Amino acid sequence: MGFDFTVFKGSKDGKITKSTTHKDTLDPDEVLIQVTHSGLCGTDQHYRSEEMVLGHEGVGIVQQIGSTVTSFKVGERVGWGYEHDSCGHCDECLNGNEMHCPERHMYGISEFDQGSFATHAVWRARFLFHVPESIQSAEAAPLMCAGATVFNALYSHDVRPTDRVGIVGIGGLGHLAIQFASRMGCEVVVFSGTESKKQEAMHLGASEFYATKDVKKLDIGRKLKHLFVTTSSQPDWPLFFSVLAPNAAIYPLTVSQDSLTMPYLELVQNGIRIQGSITPSRGTHIKMLRFAAFHQIKPIVQTFPMNLEGIEDAMQKLEKGEVRYRAVLVVEGA
Amino acid sequence: MGFDFTVFKGSKDGKITKSTTHKDTLDPDEVLIQVTHSGLCGTDQHYRSEEMVLGHEGVGIVQQIGSTVTSFKVGERVGWGYEHDSCGHCDECLNGNEMHCPERHMYGISEFDQGSFATHAVWRARFLFHVPESIQSAEAAPLMCAGATVFNALYSHDVRPTDRVGIVGIGGLGHLAIQFASRMGCEVVVFSGTESKKQEAMHLGASEFYATKDVKKLDIGRKLKHLFVTTSSQPDWPLFFSVLAPNAAIYPLTVSQDSLTMPYLELVQNGIRIQGSITPSRGTHIKMLRFAAFHQIKPIVQTFPMNLEGIEDAMQKLEKGEVRYRAVLVVEGA
Repeated sequence: MGFDFTVFKGSKDGKITKSTTHKDTLDPDEVLIQVTHSGLCGTDQHYRSEEMVLGHEGVGIVQQIGSTVTSFKVGERVGWGYEHDSCGHCDECLNGNEMHCPERHMYGISEFDQGSFATHAVWRARFLFHVPESIQSAEAAPLMCAGATVFNALYSHDVRPTDRVGIVGIGGLGHLAIQFASRMGCEVVVFSGTESKKQEAMHLGASEFYATKDVKKLDIGRKLKHLFVTTSSQPDWPLFFSVLAPNAAIYPLTVSQDSLTMPYLELVQNGIRIQGSITPSRGTHIKMLRFAAFHQIKPIVQTFPMNLEGIEDAMQKLEKGEVRYRAVLVVEGA
Repeated sequence: MGFDFTVFKGSKDGKITKSTTHKDTLDPDEVLIQVTHSGLCGTDQHYRSEEMVLGHEGVGIVQQIGSTVTSFKVGERVGWGYEHDSCGHCDECLNGNEMHCPERHMYGISEFDQGSFATHAVWRARFLFHVPESIQSAEAAPLMCAGATVFNALYSHDVRPTDRVGIVGIGGLGHLAIQFASRMGCEVVVFSGTESKKQEAMHLGASEFYATKDVKKLDIGRKLKHLFVTTSSQPDWPLFFSVLAPNAAIYPLTVSQDSLTMPYLELVQNGIRIQGSITPSRGTHIKMLRFAAFHQIKPIVQTFPMNLEGIEDAMQKLEKGEVRYRAVLVVEGA
């Protein structure tokens, strides 16, 4: 009875392991998905020493639906990021910010025996998204977390099309932020360590580019209203404060265990805002997918096979900063 | 020709000095004010080693007006905070945020020979405010900076009457923030070092009070949507992060030369916002005065004579944290 499928987990020593998840039956609101693609996110690396199924940028095909599922049909293509249990009755849930529900589980479902590093996944229907037809599956996968994260920061606060916007770092998040911000009508000023990614940044939609390595002083002309920081570690904050307009906002999207240390008085006197931001509500996630489809915003991906070697290889390249710009694991023969 | 009046300045060694400012004539848009009261702000202490006239919480009587002044008449009571030259054509000026004009002078007029520690001041009409009749002059003075600063933080971002709001510190700013926030309809949760100011805080409008000295863990029940920090130095940020709801905002109003150091990942994951905020636009300043008059919001003041001894005495008490809650200098016989 039931079904078994292959999943890839982290383990105490950080080695990726292969195992089998068993599921007896589908709950009424659940969907069985045959995974075809999964993006690899920096967060997966942070969780590789946990005994849980990794992956939260999934794309696949609906294979079976629970008895009450009406929004998805067998054979349809779906994507998903995190599934998060939310209580449904706290202020955050009721305001549509279920990602900030204090009772949420942010990674996988409660038992952590599900994820997109797998051949299949069982997910509740309300955490799945239809993938717009014009977006290929390998390109849809990174939109589920990286795309959603940068879109949320750009969309859910007060970025206006007339704003001059800075993007720091060109990686999995940054190369998408450049595309989203430029399609939103903004002047997009990109900062990267060296000139090596300049041409690509301009091609993606940057209007200006500045290399920052060993730079003590930035002169970018008119200052920035918003600064999206997507680097792998926290940047030189005082350097970037110098290019902020009064009342500007900084969105730190970097995952970092370090403290935040910034110029204090400058922040107060210039009315600077530091805005924490993560992945969006489901409503905003859907808008992100529509916007990406309409503007042909495409992650630039590098594919690896969905197996132990492929995952280890992709993680190693991500660690070394060699991925251009998002690794996607592909289930062979799916 | 012209007129001379007494002013009190800072000096290199931090001693307050008395001198005379001479003014030949009034410019067409200028107003000569006979100062009656001036609040003493922490900022004055920061500037006491500068050779400039101190004071930016002035109240007085119009004595003479320039040829084009129509909004003030001789004999009227006026108040003022900073006069700030603003360019009038940058994004900030055009959006009504003239306080963030990059060309502003924040303290006194350009030559810094004016201020409210004086018997008289010459100020441009557009930087003066009518004082509502129901507010006494000694109580109006601290509203010009302390009141304006806390009102701006509470009013210009997204505090809603249904929000649960924290105020850290009960001093010149904090005791006004409690009043403004409670009259705006908010639940006001006050934090102070010890219990000594508890009764006063509750009387001013606090709904709850917590002493924080030597406290390692705060348990306040439902968490806060906004936290206004008015302490004389930066507080224990991690302690206060623990009482913030998801998507909460922190408004650091403390004047501090230290760096800002905060928990980083918590800020990002909980969508926390740090919002720098200073004194308001002129439009918001007027709303603050109307709101204070309507709700009878009154600074609690301690008066000192406007002379060398009075200023030194008030500054010393401020330094020691002994002022309850705002020092006001009174010009004798004015």
